[in-house]
Amino acid sequence: MNIGLAVLGAGRIGRVHARAISQVGGARLVAVADAFEEAARALGAEHGAQVRDIDTILAAADVDAVVICTPTDTHAELIERAARAGKAIFCEKPIDLDATRARACLQVVEETGARLMVGFNRRFDPHFRALKEAIGAGRIGEVEMITITSRDPGPPPAEYIHSSGGIFKDMTIHDFDMARFLLGEEVTSVMARASVLVDPAIGECGDFDSASAILTTASGRQCLISNSRRAVYGYDQRIEVHGSAGMVQAMNQREADIEVATAEGFTRPPLLDFFMTRYTAAYAAEIAGFIAALSAGAEMSPGGEDGLRALLIAEAAQRSVKEGRAVTVDV
Amino acid sequence: MNIGLAVLGAGRIGRVHARAISQVGGARLVAVADAFEEAARALGAEHGAQVRDIDTILAAADVDAVVICTPTDTHAELIERAARAGKAIFCEKPIDLDATRARACLQVVEETGARLMVGFNRRFDPHFRALKEAIGAGRIGEVEMITITSRDPGPPPAEYIHSSGGIFKDMTIHDFDMARFLLGEEVTSVMARASVLVDPAIGECGDFDSASAILTTASGRQCLISNSRRAVYGYDQRIEVHGSAGMVQAMNQREADIEVATAEGFTRPPLLDFFMTRYTAAYAAEIAGFIAALSAGAEMSPGGEDGLRALLIAEAAQRSVKEGRAVTVDV
Amino acid sequence: MNIGLAVLGAGRIGRVHARAISQVGGARLVAVADAFEEAARALGAEHGAQVRDIDTILAAADVDAVVICTPTDTHAELIERAARAGKAIFCEKPIDLDATRARACLQVVEETGARLMVGFNRRFDPHFRALKEAIGAGRIGEVEMITITSRDPGPPPAEYIHSSGGIFKDMTIHDFDMARFLLGEEVTSVMARASVLVDPAIGECGDFDSASAILTTASGRQCLISNSRRAVYGYDQRIEVHGSAGMVQAMNQREADIEVATAEGFTRPPLLDFFMTRYTAAYAAEIAGFIAALSAGAEMSPGGEDGLRALLIAEAAQRSVKEGRAVTVDV
Amino acid sequence: MNIGLAVLGAGRIGRVHARAISQVGGARLVAVADAFEEAARALGAEHGAQVRDIDTILAAADVDAVVICTPTDTHAELIERAARAGKAIFCEKPIDLDATRARACLQVVEETGARLMVGFNRRFDPHFRALKEAIGAGRIGEVEMITITSRDPGPPPAEYIHSSGGIFKDMTIHDFDMARFLLGEEVTSVMARASVLVDPAIGECGDFDSASAILTTASGRQCLISNSRRAVYGYDQRIEVHGSAGMVQAMNQREADIEVATAEGFTRPPLLDFFMTRYTAAYAAEIAGFIAALSAGAEMSPGGEDGLRALLIAEAAQRSVKEGRAVTVDV
Repeated sequence: MNIGLAVLGAGRIGRVHARAISQVGGARLVAVADAFEEAARALGAEHGAQVRDIDTILAAADVDAVVICTPTDTHAELIERAARAGKAIFCEKPIDLDATRARACLQVVEETGARLMVGFNRRFDPHFRALKEAIGAGRIGEVEMITITSRDPGPPPAEYIHSSGGIFKDMTIHDFDMARFLLGEEVTSVMARASVLVDPAIGECGDFDSASAILTTASGRQCLISNSRRAVYGYDQRIEVHGSAGMVQAMNQREADIEVATAEGFTRPPLLDFFMTRYTAAYAAEIAGFIAALSAGAEMSPGGEDGLRALLIAEAAQRSVKEGRAVTVDV
Repeated sequence: MNIGLAVLGAGRIGRVHARAISQVGGARLVAVADAFEEAARALGAEHGAQVRDIDTILAAADVDAVVICTPTDTHAELIERAARAGKAIFCEKPIDLDATRARACLQVVEETGARLMVGFNRRFDPHFRALKEAIGAGRIGEVEMITITSRDPGPPPAEYIHSSGGIFKDMTIHDFDMARFLLGEEVTSVMARASVLVDPAIGECGDFDSASAILTTASGRQCLISNSRRAVYGYDQRIEVHGSAGMVQAMNQREADIEVATAEGFTRPPLLDFFMTRYTAAYAAEIAGFIAALSAGAEMSPGGEDGLRALLIAEAAQRSVKEGRAVTVDV
Repeated sequence: MNIGLAVLGAGRIGRVHARAISQVGGARLVAVADAFEEAARALGAEHGAQVRDIDTILAAADVDAVVICTPTDTHAELIERAARAGKAIFCEKPIDLDATRARACLQVVEETGARLMVGFNRRFDPHFRALKEAIGAGRIGEVEMITITSRDPGPPPAEYIHSSGGIFKDMTIHDFDMARFLLGEEVTSVMARASVLVDPAIGECGDFDSASAILTTASGRQCLISNSRRAVYGYDQRIEVHGSAGMVQAMNQREADIEVATAEGFTRPPLLDFFMTRYTAAYAAEIAGFIAALSAGAEMSPGGEDGLRALLIAEAAQRSVKEGRAVTVDV
Repeated sequence: MNIGLAVLGAGRIGRVHARAISQVGGARLVAVADAFEEAARALGAEHGAQVRDIDTILAAADVDAVVICTPTDTHAELIERAARAGKAIFCEKPIDLDATRARACLQVVEETGARLMVGFNRRFDPHFRALKEAIGAGRIGEVEMITITSRDPGPPPAEYIHSSGGIFKDMTIHDFDMARFLLGEEVTSVMARASVLVDPAIGECGDFDSASAILTTASGRQCLISNSRRAVYGYDQRIEVHGSAGMVQAMNQREADIEVATAEGFTRPPLLDFFMTRYTAAYAAEIAGFIAALSAGAEMSPGGEDGLRALLIAEAAQRSVKEGRAVTVDV
């Protein structure tokens, strides 16, 4: 295979994906685009890729697929344009902060027959993958209850909050996707609670920094989610799945597995405290998976439907907090 | 000090408390009562205590305190009788399955000035106690979010379910008390979900075997609880408290801390799988604490109010499941 | 069964054994002896036992067995007197600091047909026992290499060192016994190194505070031992057995299994730091095992031969340090 | 900087270093040499490097440094030739299996003023590095005793054993270097034991598959090493350093940090079972370190002296096994 890719958006996450592409045999980073040309030029130089504008990229014969890393509010439109241009698409989550807009976008994807993968990177984390495989191998029997703990090292700045869509669409959405990935059944109902315990500035934006949710499925499976915008001990990312025949847990990660014992106790280092470091392997495996599916003509997973459904759960969670009741997930 | 105690009810838990009493210096098990005289006689013989009926015990000058270990539906009445007889009282949880009845009972306790401690044994577990002390010492800052995982090794028989009051009053009530013990604020609202995933016979009793709850306080602190009537790997009893400056976790317990490594992996033994084995130290410390408070004239804790409030949370949880909404805890 | 026991020596370890006896059903602490009568009286009062002198005890019909907890230099003579008096004997390690004297003592035991158990309490620790059972169950195949880590929380006072027999006979002797217990073959040769790194006062007594040893068996099995008189993080007691099909490890113990995570890292408490606390369960199981063997007429284990062989390994280790060569264990 | 490198030897380890070079900014893999031209061509093609013979490489102006990955018996000669050609040198361990030959080689390095780094990759492992830093930061006080556990997943084929130099020069040599790296003092004396427990074919080669050693320093610091050619649970690589104020341990590594709990217990996956996977990060950091030192004109570490001293300890260990006594390390 020899697949040409273009990265749209040369920011932090664009750079991560560009590097990942350069490490996949048979794939080539052909072009880079960014509104801020300096960024595009630097990234292009690093990987021997051209700087082009988006129109040129979408028209180019040497570009098989685009990797969309631009700001969220451009995702849906770029997906549509790329779909119409016949390109395969990898898009960072979310498709759009608005479910109606996301649905319209997926309609275009369907009509054009475009192939779309959505960037829920955690599905590709080796630890969570091993957990998923343990479930698939029947080691814990039927899945019954899941607990997802997901806490950021520290709160983002208030400006970020403004355009984030709120904690459920920005942060918990990864956990909603993980719940769907692991529950073995669709989530039908959400109960959620949220509050401001970390940073009053987040509350002033109308958002929350601490949230809990219970997701349930038709057969009564339950998923508990615990979110905080602060974890001083690092990026806390754990999953525990309890089944009829056992339980499987995926543990946190640190840079070095050492333990120092002194008169004060036995101390291991804090956790990796940056999502890009914590999920380095996941990002690499994600792009490799996208390219492999592209090359093999296999199904893209997670796809557009996965992106939409996580968003719908987020919207249900928002309503649940507001109305103080269980909210049915709109499908 | 030289304190005389009588155990009412010579069943499983009565025997545990009798043994605990016999190990406290300065305390003496004076008498034992049980409707089934054979049980009373055996227990009395084991500890050199007399078999007496309840009336005799309540009238006896050598009995300072009674330890109520009879069936749940007798608790409130025995508390009232003992209170009126001027005895100090240790009563297994719950005071009653009905909050109105429990309130009436506590009214009598108040009027008589009786001293009452309620048997939430987990508050005395050395691991949870160390966790509580870490919080008290300010090691994790302000408490923000708690996760309590509490799973029984296996479901009780259906007959037990019938008189249990349901999962929230029978099992989760321990977690509700623990939440109150650790949150540093009263629980004001409950959202809960429950289902039957383990044993259909439990569903036929109108009860559930799998439950999740989110408790919240006035300032927005949150407590997540995960309950199951089945954990094939043992009695799963973990608590995690997340605060502004850190997190503290209390781990599970096993009989032997060994790990066997083979080509299949690294395996530690299953957990202790019986509540009496898991909480051996807690039961001993609980009775020792009761006797110490009695002797010192100190406050009884957890007291009657604690027993009532956990029950009120359980009732709110039941309503939340039924009505699919957040329910305010009735105080 | 109804077995009468007498404790000779009412010091620290005598009190531990007295309490253990009082918890074994069917056994009774009949008498206590101590050169310091006040100590004997206090211990007797605590357990309802008489204070008697040793002659009286050895002549008494109500005493089936003696538990020797007196100073080391009295052990051999007391074993001999008790053996001749027809009593069963539990004796704290060592039989004597001198192997020749120990041999002579065991000769008397053999001639009189007395039953003797030697106090290597660690064989009864539940964690090491589980490790031994895992080996016995074939989970790690054939034993090949053992690593024993054994470090005291802090050095004893110099006066203690003077009468201790030196680090190998006082401290490592427990590890030598454990090696024999686990290797599945007799130790035939010892290489050892020792130095003074902790406390110069120990060096001034002609002893060492830090020691390493390699024990080997006829078939080439190896056991590594690491000893230090100082471990500021608590009483470090670990064993690891490596076999043809796997490995088994027994972990350290702490009072509470909690972990506190802060910006500085994840911290568990220090280890239990006192041998009596660490080995509480072992001491209780040891005496229960002695009484059970006595009652059943079963073999006493560890017996006099075990006591002697550990001592012979200690003497070989001393010579190895002195001569800088492998020393064959004298049998 | 823009540094040109050539890899001599395109086998397994040559490919690892070639990939590592390609990921270091400012460095370039210029040429590859291998007696088996097909291997050289494949590796060159992968990284855009030329295939050249060694003479051409040593004469080339665009080659600043060579990375020697050829068979062991060519190392010393290639180091000498490269030194005389004015190239900087990275050489896989060992310099030579014979200490006299290694000394002669280092003489040439010294005379030519060549810069030489020896491939003790484990010094660059992030876990061991963190352990070293904890010691350097004074967290455990003065180093007193070290335990190194180093076990291969399975024995190499007998052919390999023949040219390996024996277990101490082939396998334990890494541990000897690590001991030197961590002890803070030179090793002055060795006691060692070795046997054949894993594979009789190894014994037939005159080698051992199971070995233990005690290293000591002038001040009495001790290092225990436990080696086996078999660990069915994966590649067992642990270090524990005990000091006057504490202890630090570096843990084993597995591909995924999950734990599955069932009725049989709590099971984590086996360890990474291949040295290249286990030490992926170490190999990358090692070459990056070599290039950084080259570029900065900084000292090469570990250098030729380190390579020699580890070899001298290995020779002392061999003699100790043979003669059954402590052997002074020849310096």
